[in-house]
Amino acid sequence: MYDVVTLGETLIRLTPPNFRLLEQTDLLTMYVAGSESNVAVGLARLGLSVCWLSRLTDNAIGHYTTSRIGGHGVDVSRVIWTTEDRVGLYFVEEGRLPRSSSVLYDRRHSAMSQMQPDDLPADLFVPGASRLLHLSGITPALGSRAAATFRHAFELAKAAGWQVSFDLNFRGKLWTEAEARACYEQYLPQSDIIITPMGDARRIFGWDGDAAAVLNKLHQRCPQAVAVLTLGADGAAACDPSGEHYHQPVFPAEQIDRIGGGDAFDAGFLYSVLRGDNTPTALRWGAAVAALKYTIPGDMPVVNHADVLRLVESGSSSATIVR
Amino acid sequence: MYDVVTLGETLIRLTPPNFRLLEQTDLLTMYVAGSESNVAVGLARLGLSVCWLSRLTDNAIGHYTTSRIGGHGVDVSRVIWTTEDRVGLYFVEEGRLPRSSSVLYDRRHSAMSQMQPDDLPADLFVPGASRLLHLSGITPALGSRAAATFRHAFELAKAAGWQVSFDLNFRGKLWTEAEARACYEQYLPQSDIIITPMGDARRIFGWDGDAAAVLNKLHQRCPQAVAVLTLGADGAAACDPSGEHYHQPVFPAEQIDRIGGGDAFDAGFLYSVLRGDNTPTALRWGAAVAALKYTIPGDMPVVNHADVLRLVESGSSSATIVR
Amino acid sequence: MYDVVTLGETLIRLTPPNFRLLEQTDLLTMYVAGSESNVAVGLARLGLSVCWLSRLTDNAIGHYTTSRIGGHGVDVSRVIWTTEDRVGLYFVEEGRLPRSSSVLYDRRHSAMSQMQPDDLPADLFVPGASRLLHLSGITPALGSRAAATFRHAFELAKAAGWQVSFDLNFRGKLWTEAEARACYEQYLPQSDIIITPMGDARRIFGWDGDAAAVLNKLHQRCPQAVAVLTLGADGAAACDPSGEHYHQPVFPAEQIDRIGGGDAFDAGFLYSVLRGDNTPTALRWGAAVAALKYTIPGDMPVVNHADVLRLVESGSSSATIVR
Amino acid sequence: MYDVVTLGETLIRLTPPNFRLLEQTDLLTMYVAGSESNVAVGLARLGLSVCWLSRLTDNAIGHYTTSRIGGHGVDVSRVIWTTEDRVGLYFVEEGRLPRSSSVLYDRRHSAMSQMQPDDLPADLFVPGASRLLHLSGITPALGSRAAATFRHAFELAKAAGWQVSFDLNFRGKLWTEAEARACYEQYLPQSDIIITPMGDARRIFGWDGDAAAVLNKLHQRCPQAVAVLTLGADGAAACDPSGEHYHQPVFPAEQIDRIGGGDAFDAGFLYSVLRGDNTPTALRWGAAVAALKYTIPGDMPVVNHADVLRLVESGSSSATIVR
Amino acid sequence: MYDVVTLGETLIRLTPPNFRLLEQTDLLTMYVAGSESNVAVGLARLGLSVCWLSRLTDNAIGHYTTSRIGGHGVDVSRVIWTTEDRVGLYFVEEGRLPRSSSVLYDRRHSAMSQMQPDDLPADLFVPGASRLLHLSGITPALGSRAAATFRHAFELAKAAGWQVSFDLNFRGKLWTEAEARACYEQYLPQSDIIITPMGDARRIFGWDGDAAAVLNKLHQRCPQAVAVLTLGADGAAACDPSGEHYHQPVFPAEQIDRIGGGDAFDAGFLYSVLRGDNTPTALRWGAAVAALKYTIPGDMPVVNHADVLRLVESGSSSATIVR
Amino acid sequence: MYDVVTLGETLIRLTPPNFRLLEQTDLLTMYVAGSESNVAVGLARLGLSVCWLSRLTDNAIGHYTTSRIGGHGVDVSRVIWTTEDRVGLYFVEEGRLPRSSSVLYDRRHSAMSQMQPDDLPADLFVPGASRLLHLSGITPALGSRAAATFRHAFELAKAAGWQVSFDLNFRGKLWTEAEARACYEQYLPQSDIIITPMGDARRIFGWDGDAAAVLNKLHQRCPQAVAVLTLGADGAAACDPSGEHYHQPVFPAEQIDRIGGGDAFDAGFLYSVLRGDNTPTALRWGAAVAALKYTIPGDMPVVNHADVLRLVESGSSSATIVR
Repeated sequence: MYDVVTLGETLIRLTPPNFRLLEQTDLLTMYVAGSESNVAVGLARLGLSVCWLSRLTDNAIGHYTTSRIGGHGVDVSRVIWTTEDRVGLYFVEEGRLPRSSSVLYDRRHSAMSQMQPDDLPADLFVPGASRLLHLSGITPALGSRAAATFRHAFELAKAAGWQVSFDLNFRGKLWTEAEARACYEQYLPQSDIIITPMGDARRIFGWDGDAAAVLNKLHQRCPQAVAVLTLGADGAAACDPSGEHYHQPVFPAEQIDRIGGGDAFDAGFLYSVLRGDNTPTALRWGAAVAALKYTIPGDMPVVNHADVLRLVESGSSSATIVR
Repeated sequence: MYDVVTLGETLIRLTPPNFRLLEQTDLLTMYVAGSESNVAVGLARLGLSVCWLSRLTDNAIGHYTTSRIGGHGVDVSRVIWTTEDRVGLYFVEEGRLPRSSSVLYDRRHSAMSQMQPDDLPADLFVPGASRLLHLSGITPALGSRAAATFRHAFELAKAAGWQVSFDLNFRGKLWTEAEARACYEQYLPQSDIIITPMGDARRIFGWDGDAAAVLNKLHQRCPQAVAVLTLGADGAAACDPSGEHYHQPVFPAEQIDRIGGGDAFDAGFLYSVLRGDNTPTALRWGAAVAALKYTIPGDMPVVNHADVLRLVESGSSSATIVR
Repeated sequence: MYDVVTLGETLIRLTPPNFRLLEQTDLLTMYVAGSESNVAVGLARLGLSVCWLSRLTDNAIGHYTTSRIGGHGVDVSRVIWTTEDRVGLYFVEEGRLPRSSSVLYDRRHSAMSQMQPDDLPADLFVPGASRLLHLSGITPALGSRAAATFRHAFELAKAAGWQVSFDLNFRGKLWTEAEARACYEQYLPQSDIIITPMGDARRIFGWDGDAAAVLNKLHQRCPQAVAVLTLGADGAAACDPSGEHYHQPVFPAEQIDRIGGGDAFDAGFLYSVLRGDNTPTALRWGAAVAALKYTIPGDMPVVNHADVLRLVESGSSSATIVR
Repeated sequence: MYDVVTLGETLIRLTPPNFRLLEQTDLLTMYVAGSESNVAVGLARLGLSVCWLSRLTDNAIGHYTTSRIGGHGVDVSRVIWTTEDRVGLYFVEEGRLPRSSSVLYDRRHSAMSQMQPDDLPADLFVPGASRLLHLSGITPALGSRAAATFRHAFELAKAAGWQVSFDLNFRGKLWTEAEARACYEQYLPQSDIIITPMGDARRIFGWDGDAAAVLNKLHQRCPQAVAVLTLGADGAAACDPSGEHYHQPVFPAEQIDRIGGGDAFDAGFLYSVLRGDNTPTALRWGAAVAALKYTIPGDMPVVNHADVLRLVESGSSSATIVR
Repeated sequence: MYDVVTLGETLIRLTPPNFRLLEQTDLLTMYVAGSESNVAVGLARLGLSVCWLSRLTDNAIGHYTTSRIGGHGVDVSRVIWTTEDRVGLYFVEEGRLPRSSSVLYDRRHSAMSQMQPDDLPADLFVPGASRLLHLSGITPALGSRAAATFRHAFELAKAAGWQVSFDLNFRGKLWTEAEARACYEQYLPQSDIIITPMGDARRIFGWDGDAAAVLNKLHQRCPQAVAVLTLGADGAAACDPSGEHYHQPVFPAEQIDRIGGGDAFDAGFLYSVLRGDNTPTALRWGAAVAALKYTIPGDMPVVNHADVLRLVESGSSSATIVR
Repeated sequence: MYDVVTLGETLIRLTPPNFRLLEQTDLLTMYVAGSESNVAVGLARLGLSVCWLSRLTDNAIGHYTTSRIGGHGVDVSRVIWTTEDRVGLYFVEEGRLPRSSSVLYDRRHSAMSQMQPDDLPADLFVPGASRLLHLSGITPALGSRAAATFRHAFELAKAAGWQVSFDLNFRGKLWTEAEARACYEQYLPQSDIIITPMGDARRIFGWDGDAAAVLNKLHQRCPQAVAVLTLGADGAAACDPSGEHYHQPVFPAEQIDRIGGGDAFDAGFLYSVLRGDNTPTALRWGAAVAALKYTIPGDMPVVNHADVLRLVESGSSSATIVR
């Protein structure tokens, strides 16, 4: 019995040390990085029982991937192994103003992009086996096979009576806005928790207005869900099925490594929801895990429950109801 | 249901890079190192289901320990966490002839040395929950509490109908030969598999003669067991309950890191025994995992089944019956 | 003939590089770190003749310790070597807001904690052999043996006509506030220079009020001494036997490594006092060495006289008399 | 006017430091590695004027590639840049006996594999623009486009009156033996210099016998060419159009990094041929560059003319005529 | 045909990692650093054809130098190699406030300081072979031989009808202000582009007043030239032959490595001038390349055209005409 | 009161890690390396009281030098500091067969080469202040000033009644054989201990014959001295004033870093002589320290007395009298 099951692609991230450019280095730091596995790691470290599903090539790079995710207590025993395809990569040159961090994807033809609905462990998707399935919009963007697998997982989870959380995670390098919108429109009405950067929501759906306006639009379209907008430096806002709006400012953070902040937010938010907190409290947990993540090298939120709790309970930055 | 449960202390190993002395370095390489957890990692990597029991201080060093062991697929969820005591350490200066590698222990007052019989998960020790319990002679040498825990685990396993394998693993820095002998004499008659370097057996029990003589003595004392002597450069020898002797030469290896070779042998030997192989085949698996380990940095046998199998099946170094 | 003799425990500090967490690293940076040896190094680098007394285990870690302290010109030839006990350690995970730096001590059972009064080199404590003995409140907190040694050193120094400086250095992980107070009350009346963070003074003695109020209380209790309060971002304040108060703001600094700032302050302050400067000048030297230390990796104030002097003489941040 | 033009794919090689396995590292060493660019670097370092042709993705990894090849003096200004495809990779776990070095290719869909005949700079392939075109059998194995480009380059070079050297470089992971044979049979009769490991020649063509027998078969098939067999620890053998056989033993070498030894041999051999040496002398240059390469980290023969010359002229290991 | 030829000395820069002091490290990071070669690298990376002239000792350090400069596409084939003299060095301890970065030169007796006029490739200095010669005031400060070579290069370039740009680059450790002034007065009237920090211009020529006043003085003295003053945090100002003044603020930048910012400015400015931009646009390119350089480790502006262009075209910090 | 005083130049050694060539690295390992300071470190680590004299530039590199030598317990307080000149360097590319290790000196114009007789601390050279002065033939080869200083030190020591040991240490890159011979002939007749590689003795003095013959010649020339020939793989031979010959084979060693082996030998030999051992025992100590040195990175013999003693007392490789 898991608290959360996630499904998604995980890449190897390669980064030159000490702000060097790739042309200036002969050394690379290697991390394991995937939106859904990042969320899984955060949830497991906070104390939940988490299973990560994916498809990986059965070689040293694939095993490196599961060792690093499994080392944080995530159950990786249901990963599908294949002798084909590859583990995707991405290169990051960490920048500082005015040189932005540069991300170079080399993720095509990955094992996960070729995962098929039949690869899903059907015996897992039964009532009571998990409380929630966490998905992101990266998976359907990986190609038709992955999209079908995404659909199948979504349907199986709903059929089993699990909740589904859906982080839209728009990736403009993987598909067009129109493709993304078509996909999102299909799954938003069935999602229990929806998380997206506000900018993406506006761009994809063509919505105007401020956070409140966008939240309202999202609420109208999916009144059943808790909808969360992440607002960058402005924190995060949410609207729950009651229609009430909440806002949580960011916790100030000195940024060591910004990548993975959104996934960290998801982990904090979902953790809090699953322990029964109300929406503003969940926003606060999300913001706290994200802030801590910014200080941690790599993509994963390698946090401790005690540190997050201390930050959540600190005086500053309380989430407030916005009427 | 596990194939193997192990119990023991695990230390942090700190080593200067590139053969430097401690006085010459400001950098240390950190490894996780424990006889029984090394065996657990080897068994898990070969495909068995393994649970490692221990007691660890609940801090970042403790979590580092479980993340590295768990990352190889060993179940670490039953580790006992305490806010007291410490995680032991040892420093290694890697040497080359004529400078021997120098090992400096700083392991006293560790959490494992204070583990008590009640800390053992009684619900685990039931018939069918595991096939084998693997123990080593380091645990009773850690102090009276650990010795009592060792005794309790041994008895629980036997009561549950599991096999018990016992690697004597004499440590002259932890107790005297007389203390060790008293302990060994108590548990050898009940052990199903006994492994020890020949030198230790001779020293502890005061036995003369060559490997065959020592094996015979061991067989007389514990006719129920498969007894294995590791012989350093001369390979390994075994005597099974039939009284038959077997010998396995070493697989030639260029030594990158010798530490952990004995544990690697145990992992290979136990794996083979548990899959139903006969004693000479098990010796061969032990020798193969040990040889591969010598080429792998750190204490753990980070091997793959395919590589071990290829070596086991290679033409050289077959185990032969010694009549 | 020394200018300063110090006595105290020194630990090995182990830190993951580049803000990594311990769970994220297989590499550790090693430093030598001890409050009194940090002060000794600072004083020696500024040009004084300094002897550091301690008790160390006679192994590679012990020798690493003296090589790093002696390399800065401190006389380590009177260290007591033992084959027992251990050199204490501490792990530091360097954090950035909102993740605070995490310090994990593993210092119990150290050789210094077992140092006994007889271990002190009696021949050293004679008139003229040194001008000043520098002690800190960490030593009596290490246990009864170390406390007795502290007492003996204090008495020997006073008997020899040396000055004694005493940095309270309260460590809540080593003893209680009540224990500390009992100790401090015993030695404060005999100390010539007293240095403490204001927060500790308030907490230990239950004093109210601002820096001036606390300084006055300290002055009343030990009118013979120069009393110094370090005030964190607010700089430092002092009251000398005349009852005059002085305040020195901090020199702005970008913090590379904050640990050891208090010891650096002590070194600067004592150096200036010993060259005959008045109290506000000594505060300024203290603040300058502390500010430079913040930019230097590790615990030691690896400063140069010329750099400190340049900062002391720079226009900003003059110490002013507060009437 | 170049001495040599080469054409081929170059990969990024990623290797854990210090014999670590990929699962044991978070650091990778990065090298630039390609058979033909390795040859180009060796030739340029020996003093020839060399142009390397390839197709690369126009990103930081592509530019890393040209910077490292161009840094050795090879002209990379004619590389074709594309915004599509990727730069291939391979991972190497360096092993020691009995753990063999493990190579994991991730090279599919590379920019070079999609290079087309029209991408070749037609203006380059004119009489006098180069003396020799060096090709390897890897290129036609990359796919139909690369094979067509290989063919076109071969024909253009012959039409321009250049010599063509052809290292068969069979790669069993890229194509079948039958495919390779069909290709080789087409180009061998037109090649001026042919180099191949003896094992490959035997496997591909089904030839029996020792080096002399295989050389004879090769000579019969391509009497116009200088045919070279590399024999591993047995050195190299050659047959020139005269039908004379020569043999060169290896220069003893302690192997730091074996990868790239064949390319280093090619560089030494071709350099010597192009300066007008006879075949046994060229074999000796090939063996010398290969031996030095074994001591150099990475795939490229980063040699100096003086060091090679010293080895070539050393007393040992002379090439001898085998009658 | 080159766009730019440069001439100057290049040093090896050695820096401890992670803000360590030299006394705290056993590791050094090595960079190639020279004002004129930095400019050459920047220009080559922006797309121009650049030749760097210098004199280097023919050893591994010399070849390291050319490999790193040539790797960025600069033509280094005309470097003069000698078996005498040495390659200069400098050590940098990177500091943070209030510890300033410390630069320790060890550059005397370098090969470049002994370069003689005859070492210049006379055949290069012909009409049409380049559009511009870039020189800096470091070269004549290196000694009488280098000064004569500087003079000869200047005269050859003018005779060939090339433009000459002259960065005064005053180095107080190499010569006196009077010596510098005598030199500058000789060459300023013949220079087409003159670049200098305002502080140096004021110090050397004894000029008073603000940037506008200094620019006017410079314009009066060399009305034929575009004169550029770099103003540190205040950006840069220029006056072209029309007498018009322009000002360009800095682009905000987080400073990873400040060294080489002036050379980066030169590269951006010259690139823009050579593509035909007007002076305010050229200032903007200079400021953009400098700002990006501050984020890049090492002395060289390892920029990409696209990144610079994006910054140049960004809304902020436009250059304005100052009337 | 010292046991030994030494005088000589010490350099910074810079080495790429992991057998890389300088052209392949951006990282250098830094060591402190000087023949006489290496001897001093070895003697101090074995327990003697040692003072090292030299002249160093007063900058961070100079202080790095004394911190590393002083850290091993050598008294560096009498080093002469100057603001002029430089600290010499040398680069080492570590090779393996057939690529020899490459040493590139950059030591000219060093502070030590400019040391003058007056720089010697005259008050030190008094009867009883030391038992022995150790010199090497490198110092007079550094130039006329250093040669005069060498002469002055030699004479002062003899006048004070100290013994003088003289390691010829011929350096062909610093002076000619004729210059060296003229120097040696002057000092050999007054030296108490003479050490030289046999090859150098034969080359410099034009002597024929084997070790015995060369030893005899040396004995005839300086019958007052203990003369030692180091013989590479053949160990070492000595002849003492009695005319007796002794031979000591090498202790087998796996070579991590060969540089400094001769200095290590000197340290072991002198240590043994100074504790009153006879010549064959001293040879054995020399061989043991040298063998251990080969396994230690860097130039210094960072040995422990216990390890050396264990090796000296081991059964193998006894020194034997050769009659």
